[in-house]
Amino acid sequence: MKKYLMTPGPTPVPEQIALAMAAPIIHHRTKEYIQLHEQARENLKKIFQTKNDIVIFSSSGTGAMEASVSNILSDNDKALVVEAGKFGERFSQLVNSFGAEAVVLKKEYGEFVSPDEIEEYVKKYSPKAIYMQACETSTGVYHPIDEIGKILKEKYPEIVFVVDGITAVGCIDIKTDEWGIDILLTGSQKAFMLPPGLAIASVSEKAKEIASQNKNKRYYFDILGELNAQAGHFTPPVTLILGLNAAVNMMLEEGLENVFRRHQFLAKATQEAVKVMGLELFAKRPSLSLTAVKSPQGIDSKQIIDIMDSFGVSISNGQGSMKGKIFRIAHLGYFYPPDIILTIGTLEISLKKLGIDKLGVGTKKALEIFVEY
Amino acid sequence: MKKYLMTPGPTPVPEQIALAMAAPIIHHRTKEYIQLHEQARENLKKIFQTKNDIVIFSSSGTGAMEASVSNILSDNDKALVVEAGKFGERFSQLVNSFGAEAVVLKKEYGEFVSPDEIEEYVKKYSPKAIYMQACETSTGVYHPIDEIGKILKEKYPEIVFVVDGITAVGCIDIKTDEWGIDILLTGSQKAFMLPPGLAIASVSEKAKEIASQNKNKRYYFDILGELNAQAGHFTPPVTLILGLNAAVNMMLEEGLENVFRRHQFLAKATQEAVKVMGLELFAKRPSLSLTAVKSPQGIDSKQIIDIMDSFGVSISNGQGSMKGKIFRIAHLGYFYPPDIILTIGTLEISLKKLGIDKLGVGTKKALEIFVEY
Repeated sequence: MKKYLMTPGPTPVPEQIALAMAAPIIHHRTKEYIQLHEQARENLKKIFQTKNDIVIFSSSGTGAMEASVSNILSDNDKALVVEAGKFGERFSQLVNSFGAEAVVLKKEYGEFVSPDEIEEYVKKYSPKAIYMQACETSTGVYHPIDEIGKILKEKYPEIVFVVDGITAVGCIDIKTDEWGIDILLTGSQKAFMLPPGLAIASVSEKAKEIASQNKNKRYYFDILGELNAQAGHFTPPVTLILGLNAAVNMMLEEGLENVFRRHQFLAKATQEAVKVMGLELFAKRPSLSLTAVKSPQGIDSKQIIDIMDSFGVSISNGQGSMKGKIFRIAHLGYFYPPDIILTIGTLEISLKKLGIDKLGVGTKKALEIFVEY
Repeated sequence: MKKYLMTPGPTPVPEQIALAMAAPIIHHRTKEYIQLHEQARENLKKIFQTKNDIVIFSSSGTGAMEASVSNILSDNDKALVVEAGKFGERFSQLVNSFGAEAVVLKKEYGEFVSPDEIEEYVKKYSPKAIYMQACETSTGVYHPIDEIGKILKEKYPEIVFVVDGITAVGCIDIKTDEWGIDILLTGSQKAFMLPPGLAIASVSEKAKEIASQNKNKRYYFDILGELNAQAGHFTPPVTLILGLNAAVNMMLEEGLENVFRRHQFLAKATQEAVKVMGLELFAKRPSLSLTAVKSPQGIDSKQIIDIMDSFGVSISNGQGSMKGKIFRIAHLGYFYPPDIILTIGTLEISLKKLGIDKLGVGTKKALEIFVEY
């Protein structure tokens, strides 16, 4: 059966990227490959909107999360971690695994953190670094990292500001330098439209300086080691880098502003459509990259997902304690208005089969929004 | 931009077929390839619902149309040709090009031929063969070839019944043997979900017997020469045959009945959706493979098509004198309900931008139909 992948990673891989990755393998110590690798790092600066260096690891996105901890924190350092979902919790685990102390600013699932709360914790605990998601993928929340970044940059410039942009970079307008983000990280299987396998991070001069003095145990995820090596400290994932260059070219050709605008429309159409169907958004401050929706009372979200699956349309369940309670529709990466139309339509078919007749209601709202696209 | 191809050929090529065609090239005179070619011909009998032999030409579908003329007709033979659109006219051109006489049964564009009319012409002209489309792709009409076939089989068994099933085989339940179709032909880029390049036809014993005595000039499109050669008389299109086997396997795996049922749903949803939007179907007897729709008064269908194109959704204009007056949405091959939902939705956006507000009207109707899928 034909599959329509609407999950928050992996996202669909465009044929032109698959074709780029089907090119003959190149040896990674040749001049040809070194140029391709350099080109990737240079072009990524444009997507990351930064003058900072870009480091690429052959790993899942969690590799870059680990690097942002093991290269910055030392034993007994205090780090403020925003926990508003599964991925916030991962940062705490990392901080504790590397011998530092995670001071947790915990928010209910679905909630976002406010700049005031951050400042309150900063004053109280004087953390060396702050770890948080831009978008918490497990709940669909987008935190106000712009405001937080500006406060930190102005009043607490010594703090290292680490932002997990795994479901944000490349679809949301994140101004790395303007907002003082020292480490912004992402993975390949999200807005970059690639298969999994690449972790990418921008690293500020401040972060590099701290990393250079940091004695914490690390080898593979050594930021400076990776940055200083030509075309990868260890064997780089050549094929994915070929695909990355193709992806970055696609994004720059569309124009970064257009990419962001498209994601704004996709998010707005999805979110307004489900609201007008009488469904409730789970995130108090919804992201442009994915939409988490509360399952209607008496219905396990797995039931909705299974019926949509029988039409070939894949969306995601909640994670952990949210399993069965929410469903998540992704719209980051290789998605265009027709994908949202088909997804909302199939969602309506699914709900109808479960006894909730909103047939055409959300679809119409999505169409109204896309008329302006 | 992402493309959503909703045109009546080429139709989208599934990734598993593209992958099959990316396999290493095989020499066509090896045992391995001969087996693959034989397997294709055997499996095609199941799709064609026939015990007849299957001939495959490396050509566009028109190659099989030519073969059905040049192998059957001789100088001054009379052939009845149903002309109800561009492809009917092509049969007349072929018949005349090969020295026979085309007796034309002409129908207005959008009309279908009745069994009574066929019988009237048969009685009057005693043609050696009848040439007609199952579905006239240029107008979206589906002729009652089942009824016509049964009359011919019962009362005029000497007439060679040739059916162009280019946009019918593999999506409409055509019972070749039961309906007495002597030559049923198609092309690869339609329901078979392949790139263009293959013409396929089933050939009855009666047609083979006539071909064996026919002295008309031909070389490349010689049916018996092709049938009697092992794995292709001339160099066969190896890669397309690999794809064909993959396609046929996909169809048999889905189950022929399910393939037909799916196309019924796609056609019904498309046709009911446009009707409820106040648009008029162009075909008096619409096909399951594509839907031709009259452009609303004062609007050139190209305007509708262009706006849909700006959303990445490709549908087709009318051909010849129908250009600008109708638009055609295909739903044969690798199409599933979500494709129709997105197409109707985008059509509504397009009409809205042209001043006709039917936003959500057709989409809702399509969703209602797909609830029963």
